[in-house]
Amino acid sequence: MVGKKDTKGLTAEKDELSQWYTQILQKAELIEYTDISGAYILRPRSYFIWEKVKEYFDDKIKKDGVRNASFPLLIPKSNLMKEKQHIEGFTPEVAWVTKSGNTKLTEPLAIRPTSETIMYPAYSKWIRSYRDLPLRLNQWCNVVRWEFKNPIPFLRSREFLWQEGHSVFETKQEAEKEVKTIQDFYEDVYKEMYAIPVIKGRKTEKEKFAGADFTLTVEAFLPSGKAIQGATSHMLGQNFAKAFDISFLDKNEKKQLPWQTSWGITTRTIGVAIMMHSDDKGLVLSPKIAETQIIIIPIIPKKSEESKIMKKVNEIKDKLEKENLRVDIDDSNNSPGFKFNEWEMKGVPLRIELGPRDIKDNQVMTARRDNKDKQAVKIKDLNKTIPEILEKIHQSLYTKAKKFLKDNTIEVKNMKELKQAIQEKKIVKTSWSGNQDDEEAIKDETGGAKILCITDDNPKGKCVYSNKKAQHTVFIAKSY
Amino acid sequence: MVGKKDTKGLTAEKDELSQWYTQILQKAELIEYTDISGAYILRPRSYFIWEKVKEYFDDKIKKDGVRNASFPLLIPKSNLMKEKQHIEGFTPEVAWVTKSGNTKLTEPLAIRPTSETIMYPAYSKWIRSYRDLPLRLNQWCNVVRWEFKNPIPFLRSREFLWQEGHSVFETKQEAEKEVKTIQDFYEDVYKEMYAIPVIKGRKTEKEKFAGADFTLTVEAFLPSGKAIQGATSHMLGQNFAKAFDISFLDKNEKKQLPWQTSWGITTRTIGVAIMMHSDDKGLVLSPKIAETQIIIIPIIPKKSEESKIMKKVNEIKDKLEKENLRVDIDDSNNSPGFKFNEWEMKGVPLRIELGPRDIKDNQVMTARRDNKDKQAVKIKDLNKTIPEILEKIHQSLYTKAKKFLKDNTIEVKNMKELKQAIQEKKIVKTSWSGNQDDEEAIKDETGGAKILCITDDNPKGKCVYSNKKAQHTVFIAKSY
Repeated sequence: MVGKKDTKGLTAEKDELSQWYTQILQKAELIEYTDISGAYILRPRSYFIWEKVKEYFDDKIKKDGVRNASFPLLIPKSNLMKEKQHIEGFTPEVAWVTKSGNTKLTEPLAIRPTSETIMYPAYSKWIRSYRDLPLRLNQWCNVVRWEFKNPIPFLRSREFLWQEGHSVFETKQEAEKEVKTIQDFYEDVYKEMYAIPVIKGRKTEKEKFAGADFTLTVEAFLPSGKAIQGATSHMLGQNFAKAFDISFLDKNEKKQLPWQTSWGITTRTIGVAIMMHSDDKGLVLSPKIAETQIIIIPIIPKKSEESKIMKKVNEIKDKLEKENLRVDIDDSNNSPGFKFNEWEMKGVPLRIELGPRDIKDNQVMTARRDNKDKQAVKIKDLNKTIPEILEKIHQSLYTKAKKFLKDNTIEVKNMKELKQAIQEKKIVKTSWSGNQDDEEAIKDETGGAKILCITDDNPKGKCVYSNKKAQHTVFIAKSY
Repeated sequence: MVGKKDTKGLTAEKDELSQWYTQILQKAELIEYTDISGAYILRPRSYFIWEKVKEYFDDKIKKDGVRNASFPLLIPKSNLMKEKQHIEGFTPEVAWVTKSGNTKLTEPLAIRPTSETIMYPAYSKWIRSYRDLPLRLNQWCNVVRWEFKNPIPFLRSREFLWQEGHSVFETKQEAEKEVKTIQDFYEDVYKEMYAIPVIKGRKTEKEKFAGADFTLTVEAFLPSGKAIQGATSHMLGQNFAKAFDISFLDKNEKKQLPWQTSWGITTRTIGVAIMMHSDDKGLVLSPKIAETQIIIIPIIPKKSEESKIMKKVNEIKDKLEKENLRVDIDDSNNSPGFKFNEWEMKGVPLRIELGPRDIKDNQVMTARRDNKDKQAVKIKDLNKTIPEILEKIHQSLYTKAKKFLKDNTIEVKNMKELKQAIQEKKIVKTSWSGNQDDEEAIKDETGGAKILCITDDNPKGKCVYSNKKAQHTVFIAKSY
């Protein structure tokens, strides 16, 4: 089932971050490059991760009453231009279709960078009365943002996959409640699927979504010492309702503007998970999202024992598959040591070895990818013990990441401490005046660290930069 | 849960086909138009259908060993130009991206009309040895084909959703086996999801996929008297392997060209299902793909009885939802008659009515959407009887469509019979020489009916047009 291919392991270690990351992406068969810079192929092992995340989140929002739909890829230029802040945020990155076949189009069409401006004209038609609300739709699709920054697979790519939810409510309260609920759902995705703890907060005015009243965010902090925006949930207020003429008649037959939200999580999350848990031997993944959860490696010292061992190995595979586990056997001619390295590189969470002595003892040897723990398991207990081990792997990845976050979070009171902490690749908790000049100054003086999010609006004390009265508690770090 | 909205039923009858179809799409809330001709919004009720079809087919191909992946949306022009026949088939319909932001791109990028030319350069990198084969990947995505023919929602739209599978094998036999297997899977989708029988066959040389050796197809015949191509499975032979330099070392270390297939089924299927089963009262759908399978309508003659009836109605909903059925209650202020019409229009397969007398009798009244059959069901039997009724609805939709196909299939021996049959909106089975001039002539003389597919290569008798020795048994009809 498994061929002998690229035989070299990682040559870069984890602290040479970008090489290490690139090697994992290729050697673990997650990404393939194309002739277009910033456009990547998601190979089956990485697309599988997205399918699992999709299943999990889709189920959550459907149970909460959201329905899926599908809106067109292409947006007429005139639509895109309707909400002023939104245009300014997105047009520099838009990919424009100007021709079909040999014919010039009368109006250029934007490939959606996000779908507000193609969805809301339809919302304007559908919403007439309070009975049509709430309207809560979501779509799973691709979007294109032709950024000119250096692309990084998953983290910053010119095309990515995401879900985008777009809801409309009668009241501000309902809309505010939704942006929080969705932020919690995103936290759950990171925790339950990727085994990653996040910091929840609100973006600053400078960093919020173009066209929103405010943006809630979940932020992850990576072993590289950089943070990354994990997923965002926007309170759009009534801005788009005004721009797209969305209104409803309330119970008293009075015309009202509704309140809107939009929210998205993307394939960026896959990159975050890879960076968070992987090590010098290659990819480390939670069993929840690994295409192959268990690799079985037969240990065959003598040819004469092969058929007996392979029979047992296949029995074990069947037994585990009955528990809905995803199992593969490596029956190639490679040496066991070679196989161990290969599957460690590919991030299979659990290895099972089975040799002649194990058969005699009615057991197998298991080896965890995340911490190398080995444990003998009786064959009769496999169906119970293996799922438990997989659950433990997920839990200990999460616990380890949580400890990392805690150990690397530093509270500071002045710029000297802040600068030092950033230099030491920490994530900083501190107080800020709320003033945008101070925000810029913090970024300048720390060599690019920025305010990731606001976690509290009633701090005691003074702004770390200006010494003015603090308005917000914030997290600051360098970021992707 | 349900508001009072567009209160008018269909005004067009089924034989005024295009108006009737358009009214169903809008009144059953399946499609919304946009400012771009040929680009449609799939509203939740139609997108749900696609989700169900996706689930079904995805499970089938995964069990058969296919893996999902995701390839970029945009294809460099130079890639698209590599396979000669392929270019000729697709370039007239390609939407071209020529600008990002305000910057002209150095090379125009095509929005994928199909993904051979973005996938196969990667295949060329990945495939080295026979151990890398078979390689069988699939993706679920959107594609754009900027056709200039009159667009029809679902049936001919400029963007559509589909899956495209792309496999590579060592031998011709394996590839030929796969195109047949997939053709069978497509037949199953139509039968098991849409309750539609199809004709299986092979496309003529003129109608095959641009770049294929041959194309297998499933064709449906609609009550409008027109056929429609349902899904296709292409034997690519070694054409793309040559164009994209895909080769492998066989067991004897000899370099070989592999054999390829590609195959796709699209959101067109939704339109086929709507046209096949719907009637003058609106949409008719199989319960397998209906977002709401059961609508419960409380019959409340006196306000004083409302709470008792609503309590029972909610109990019934819970009971049915425990059976994994998709149930809604219409508790709006509309009259029962209004509600009946509305939900018939929206294609909900089964209606349950519950009034005071039903409560006394411990029963509900059910009404099937497809044939209007009414049946009283004891409340205690609901969990068993309702799923049975839904299954029966699916079966009788299929049986009816199968009878329709049989009753409208006519075997003919000469052009006079052929022309008359086509005029009477039949689908014709006859013999053909295999000559392309004869194929064209048949089309011309019948006012546009074409050879849908070849079902046999050893017929007795003469070509219906030229009287030459027949090479193929074919089906002929007008088509979308």
